[in-house]
Amino acid sequence: MPCPVARSLERVGEWWSILILRDALHGMTRFDQFQKSLGIAPNMLARRLSALVAAGLLERHRYSDHPPRDEYQLTARGRDFRMVLVALLTWGNRHFAPEGASVLLVDAETGAPADPILVDRRTEQPITETGHRYVAGPAASARVHKRLGSTRRGRGVGGHKPPAQRGASRQRRSS
Amino acid sequence: MPCPVARSLERVGEWWSILILRDALHGMTRFDQFQKSLGIAPNMLARRLSALVAAGLLERHRYSDHPPRDEYQLTARGRDFRMVLVALLTWGNRHFAPEGASVLLVDAETGAPADPILVDRRTEQPITETGHRYVAGPAASARVHKRLGSTRRGRGVGGHKPPAQRGASRQRRSS
Repeated sequence: MPCPVARSLERVGEWWSILILRDALHGMTRFDQFQKSLGIAPNMLARRLSALVAAGLLERHRYSDHPPRDEYQLTARGRDFRMVLVALLTWGNRHFAPEGASVLLVDAETGAPADPILVDRRTEQPITETGHRYVAGPAASARVHKRLGSTRRGRGVGGHKPPAQRGASRQRRSS
Repeated sequence: MPCPVARSLERVGEWWSILILRDALHGMTRFDQFQKSLGIAPNMLARRLSALVAAGLLERHRYSDHPPRDEYQLTARGRDFRMVLVALLTWGNRHFAPEGASVLLVDAETGAPADPILVDRRTEQPITETGHRYVAGPAASARVHKRLGSTRRGRGVGGHKPPAQRGASRQRRSS
């Protein structure tokens, strides 16, 4: 599937892989660290680590020959996945933490909880449903063209916003 | 699991569910629209739609009694998942689109491609590895405390950055 969301999911579209990346971004590199953190079966962990190496998200380095031991370090591509994890963390805290947050992202200097939102680096405007829309890119397949062309892109849920309102509101909203 | 990433994944941690949400955010509401877009088996689609309704991400509304037909509309919680999808899209375009992007997010007014980055709404600073860190929240379990306490949070891959550098660099970086 050529859609970039589907493509990303092909690489990490699986519970364990995402949690392994989460732990790697927390600084873990070794098999036993991941296993202890995740409580995952060793064969399953070995398989997921190999898949993440194959997808170019982790690199395997031997740190001991006797006994043979590898460690797994994030590549630039793997580190960049942090954006997705921060979005998942933010969404989870907002909607599935009735008893309060269990993990908070905070400003390293002040310790104040961060409130992550997506903005366009160029315009510094928040990414919103009305201010942005999806279009077929240069490498779009016929399927992607059809999906983007035939659906009501830019409209809110239930179609309450007519196309004329597109881009009319640019207030700061959390995407 | 109390970690907000794990919790979010419990709700949508599955390929099809995320692609259904993607299509819902593109404006699709009806069973046959999703089926056509995804090429998914009807029983699997029905199961995933019901799970998304149960998780509070979609709402089911009957729009026809003869024949009986439902449509699925995003709740506020489901719409808010857009942040995760935009992060996945951005990451996918950046790392898995060697032939060029197939889907682009663009500014609705100017048509210019957006370059989404995460910033802290309060400070307007980009969320970076050095500028932010994870801490246990008020509802953290012993396991979360241990994971966050025992790992090398705030350090880059391979531990190249000593803790003293934390928060030192605040240049604009895409998370």
